[in-house]
Amino acid sequence: MSEAWTACVLTLFPDMFPGPLGLSLAGRALASGLWRLDAVDIRGFATDRHRSVDDTPSGGGAGMVMRADVVAAAVDAVHEAGRPLIYLSPRGKPLTQARVRELAQGSGVTLLCGRFEGLDQRVIEGRIMEEISLGDFILSGGEPAALALLDAVVRLLPGVMGKEASGEDESFESGLLEYPHYTRPQIFEGREIPAVLTSGDHGKIEAWRRAEAEKVTKERRPDLWEKFLEAGAKDSRKSD
Amino acid sequence: MSEAWTACVLTLFPDMFPGPLGLSLAGRALASGLWRLDAVDIRGFATDRHRSVDDTPSGGGAGMVMRADVVAAAVDAVHEAGRPLIYLSPRGKPLTQARVRELAQGSGVTLLCGRFEGLDQRVIEGRIMEEISLGDFILSGGEPAALALLDAVVRLLPGVMGKEASGEDESFESGLLEYPHYTRPQIFEGREIPAVLTSGDHGKIEAWRRAEAEKVTKERRPDLWEKFLEAGAKDSRKSD
Repeated sequence: MSEAWTACVLTLFPDMFPGPLGLSLAGRALASGLWRLDAVDIRGFATDRHRSVDDTPSGGGAGMVMRADVVAAAVDAVHEAGRPLIYLSPRGKPLTQARVRELAQGSGVTLLCGRFEGLDQRVIEGRIMEEISLGDFILSGGEPAALALLDAVVRLLPGVMGKEASGEDESFESGLLEYPHYTRPQIFEGREIPAVLTSGDHGKIEAWRRAEAEKVTKERRPDLWEKFLEAGAKDSRKSD
Repeated sequence: MSEAWTACVLTLFPDMFPGPLGLSLAGRALASGLWRLDAVDIRGFATDRHRSVDDTPSGGGAGMVMRADVVAAAVDAVHEAGRPLIYLSPRGKPLTQARVRELAQGSGVTLLCGRFEGLDQRVIEGRIMEEISLGDFILSGGEPAALALLDAVVRLLPGVMGKEASGEDESFESGLLEYPHYTRPQIFEGREIPAVLTSGDHGKIEAWRRAEAEKVTKERRPDLWEKFLEAGAKDSRKSD
């Protein structure tokens, strides 16, 4: 039997894990061994008697910086070669569903959660970390980002979602935002479910959903819409 | 005394809260009353004897859709008028630090966490929800996004961070990614701290940091760099 997909999280707050990942979809999968989560306390790798992990920034300024030597010792002790080593940082490349899918196809990941002003740049470079950002906002540390990233990855692991809910129809998988959803009751506060959806005509339903997905993407995310058109143009060139 | 900034989270998994927000910076602020968190179970607003909150999608397809009537009842029971009502959804506008700062300046927020395929579109429209996305990836539900959003907002609330760490120097606040950080030891695996940072020349240090911030933004985030240049051009037109 092959080993379960494993997340190793290096953090100063191991008690934040599994947190929300201990419940619902990810929690059930964790309990049944479909994935594994090791939260490792970086402070355990401090070398002085105060167990310090940080120090003041060279050149001055607010806050504290996580020490290269302590972080390197933690990484070297737990990181399994061949797996991605990801430092969650607002300076990183924004996380995408494509990267989430790649991570789910591997054997696991090591996630490094920064605190304070961040990590000493030399350990980022010295350990060739991949820097990933959750988005253009600032968290108090990498932990909430690690929780979100793992939630996104775990749901794609084999056996976690039912076959019916494979997620292929979802936002970003097609390059478009998703079409709107409706369910019973038929009338809510005077608003009816669009007639096409109750017509039973599957061709028409599919066409309507596709048109709605294109419309919402164009309206809300012109950046995604442009990428979608470019990808389509590339595909049709390929098939020429 | 004015009331503390209040987050009201509507969720099917109230046990996910406070989760990571109960520890560290946000946790200390929560314990000392600098903000308040109410996690409300949407299932408490179901009306049938099975307490159902979802039903199959109109028009067919995988998964389940959250019912408009149940969600509306939950919102109407807990949402305080005048506060933002945010539905966390991959179809929303990507969260930015500017929106985080606005939220911190208000009196609180109501967050709606979707599960399954999402909410019936009619309740999103009927309750005029603001749709916000954490990024271009798919979570198992809105909860990890709510945790990240609240973490980002809470650290900006008055009294939560020390005065020194006001966060004005950080990524996105200036429109640029942040410059790299260094701290002791002076030499790490043969890599030295850049000499300028230990020169004591504050003008030179500031210029170096600014140049590094511009360089990393240009390299990693040409999209941000373009916005930064546009904003600068606008500012200089204004001051003409």
